[in-house]
Amino acid sequence: MIQADVSQVPLRMPNAAGVRAAARAIAAILPPTPLLPVTIGDTRVWVKAEMLQPIGSFKIRGAWWRLLSLPEAERAAGVVAVSSGNHAQGVAWAAKRLGMRATIVMPHDAPAVKLANTRALGAEVVLYERAPKEQGGQDRDAVAAELIAQGGGTLVHAFGDPWVIEGQGTAAIEIAAQLGGAPSRIIACCGGGGLAAGLSLGAPHAKIHPVEPVGWDMVGQSLAAGEIVPAAPDAPRTICDALQPTATKPINLAVLQNRAEPGVAVTDAEVRAAQRFAFANLRLVVEPGGAAALAAALAGKVPLDADTVIMLTGGNADPAAYAATIAGHD
Amino acid sequence: MIQADVSQVPLRMPNAAGVRAAARAIAAILPPTPLLPVTIGDTRVWVKAEMLQPIGSFKIRGAWWRLLSLPEAERAAGVVAVSSGNHAQGVAWAAKRLGMRATIVMPHDAPAVKLANTRALGAEVVLYERAPKEQGGQDRDAVAAELIAQGGGTLVHAFGDPWVIEGQGTAAIEIAAQLGGAPSRIIACCGGGGLAAGLSLGAPHAKIHPVEPVGWDMVGQSLAAGEIVPAAPDAPRTICDALQPTATKPINLAVLQNRAEPGVAVTDAEVRAAQRFAFANLRLVVEPGGAAALAAALAGKVPLDADTVIMLTGGNADPAAYAATIAGHD
Repeated sequence: MIQADVSQVPLRMPNAAGVRAAARAIAAILPPTPLLPVTIGDTRVWVKAEMLQPIGSFKIRGAWWRLLSLPEAERAAGVVAVSSGNHAQGVAWAAKRLGMRATIVMPHDAPAVKLANTRALGAEVVLYERAPKEQGGQDRDAVAAELIAQGGGTLVHAFGDPWVIEGQGTAAIEIAAQLGGAPSRIIACCGGGGLAAGLSLGAPHAKIHPVEPVGWDMVGQSLAAGEIVPAAPDAPRTICDALQPTATKPINLAVLQNRAEPGVAVTDAEVRAAQRFAFANLRLVVEPGGAAALAAALAGKVPLDADTVIMLTGGNADPAAYAATIAGHD
Repeated sequence: MIQADVSQVPLRMPNAAGVRAAARAIAAILPPTPLLPVTIGDTRVWVKAEMLQPIGSFKIRGAWWRLLSLPEAERAAGVVAVSSGNHAQGVAWAAKRLGMRATIVMPHDAPAVKLANTRALGAEVVLYERAPKEQGGQDRDAVAAELIAQGGGTLVHAFGDPWVIEGQGTAAIEIAAQLGGAPSRIIACCGGGGLAAGLSLGAPHAKIHPVEPVGWDMVGQSLAAGEIVPAAPDAPRTICDALQPTATKPINLAVLQNRAEPGVAVTDAEVRAAQRFAFANLRLVVEPGGAAALAAALAGKVPLDADTVIMLTGGNADPAAYAATIAGHD
């Protein structure tokens, strides 16, 4: 049973057996996303094209495993999630497929494409003001807790949830099958740390490199400090809308501590360069947050070797912003 | 042996056994491109994502099979090709891999990205003026013939060649394996008719729909007339730079006659709408010529059913033009 208050470590920890079980469940409904070769400098590495998932991001994995694992008795009440857009679509997709009600708390300034896609999948969207509280901002977790108190159902946290972590880790199982062996390292775009934690369980012999936007590298900072470091109230703007959680969660830090490599932070300019690289060399549309890991690789911020895998985690890009990036106007 | 003069039907006709042999050769070096589900209207159909090939288009198939099939004695002299850019990259890629010399005749106004990619693959590029002869234009086939006369090696025609046709047809073998059975119909972007001819051999039970730009629908017109109809000297502009041959060839018409469905023509506006659809719904970068088949499907110009496959043939898009299309500025 998952509780509405996810500020505590949940009763169970995610584990490798759970990732393998999740991988079987996901293989039954979703084909593996392509693992494509790409040369960076003189090194041939791999990209895992998760933006080719039906909802355009890897979030479909964790959402599906979480909802599939809900006890029958809890399904009728539905689910509630908080998300800037990709987890929202994952939960909406899974709920629709399972015939469940989904209510998603999303920021007012979420990309229009993500709001539209979430609604198109049949979810009810509740908007909140993303800003510091003293500037009229709302606590999104409080908004979700209120919905749950009103009977909205089970909270499906975007990253601080053992099933969600296991589901995201299934990408590692696919990668090993596609490579014909374990990857040496996986470079992963990182928001709250759900994907990085899942990959560390699913690929136990691989180095895991979490990559975050500059100023929003709370997983990296928390790993370095050995405790949760929240986002600064004056954290700078970033184009990576998908990678702006207020803090990682104890369950994520517990999995990643003494396991993940030190965090890496990338600039908006590096992210845009990665989006252009993916356009020209891979013919893949990558949103800013989905290009963070590639940005780190291209910027030489992570070592690369032949069995390195770079996660391209999402492709729900705002058309106008994407066009400006591709044309080189920003 | 292939002759420099390809205005005649070559000595051998492409055939289904050749497509199957080519498919085995290509499977040895290139993984299948993804076959991705997509819903158009109320129908779930499939797209074959050929822009995910290493060179960004399906042309790698025919080029590889042609060069691999060259007798050892002919390899030393190298190969010559004429192309607006995608066949160029295919031939350059195959030649590099086989350690052969490649000279490619390309139009002055070929997209910069295609010129750069072809040169980056080690090919020598010879530019010619694409315009009517009375306006100073050059006959590109004459330019190629001159290079061959000077010892440039074997001509690898972009579509009027039995090996090239068989190689392009290998996409149909992959599709059948991925679908677990024969597709009902394949909608294919069509320039000179190499892909359409190959698919008709590789998928003998499928309806084959060639899709061309308005005013450049010479395969469609030739099928209707029962003889080769060349492009009009005053043919309108099209954004589909990859789909502007001066005429189809006897070998293509011979394969397609009494076999292909009537040709379909799409407008620039329909092509741009398809590029935007692929961006938003598939997170795939498709160049104009690569989006023609999808344009026909979205415009309701071809019937769709559950086992319909739409070829997305290329993704080497000019950044500025692509950005304008995605932003809706044209």
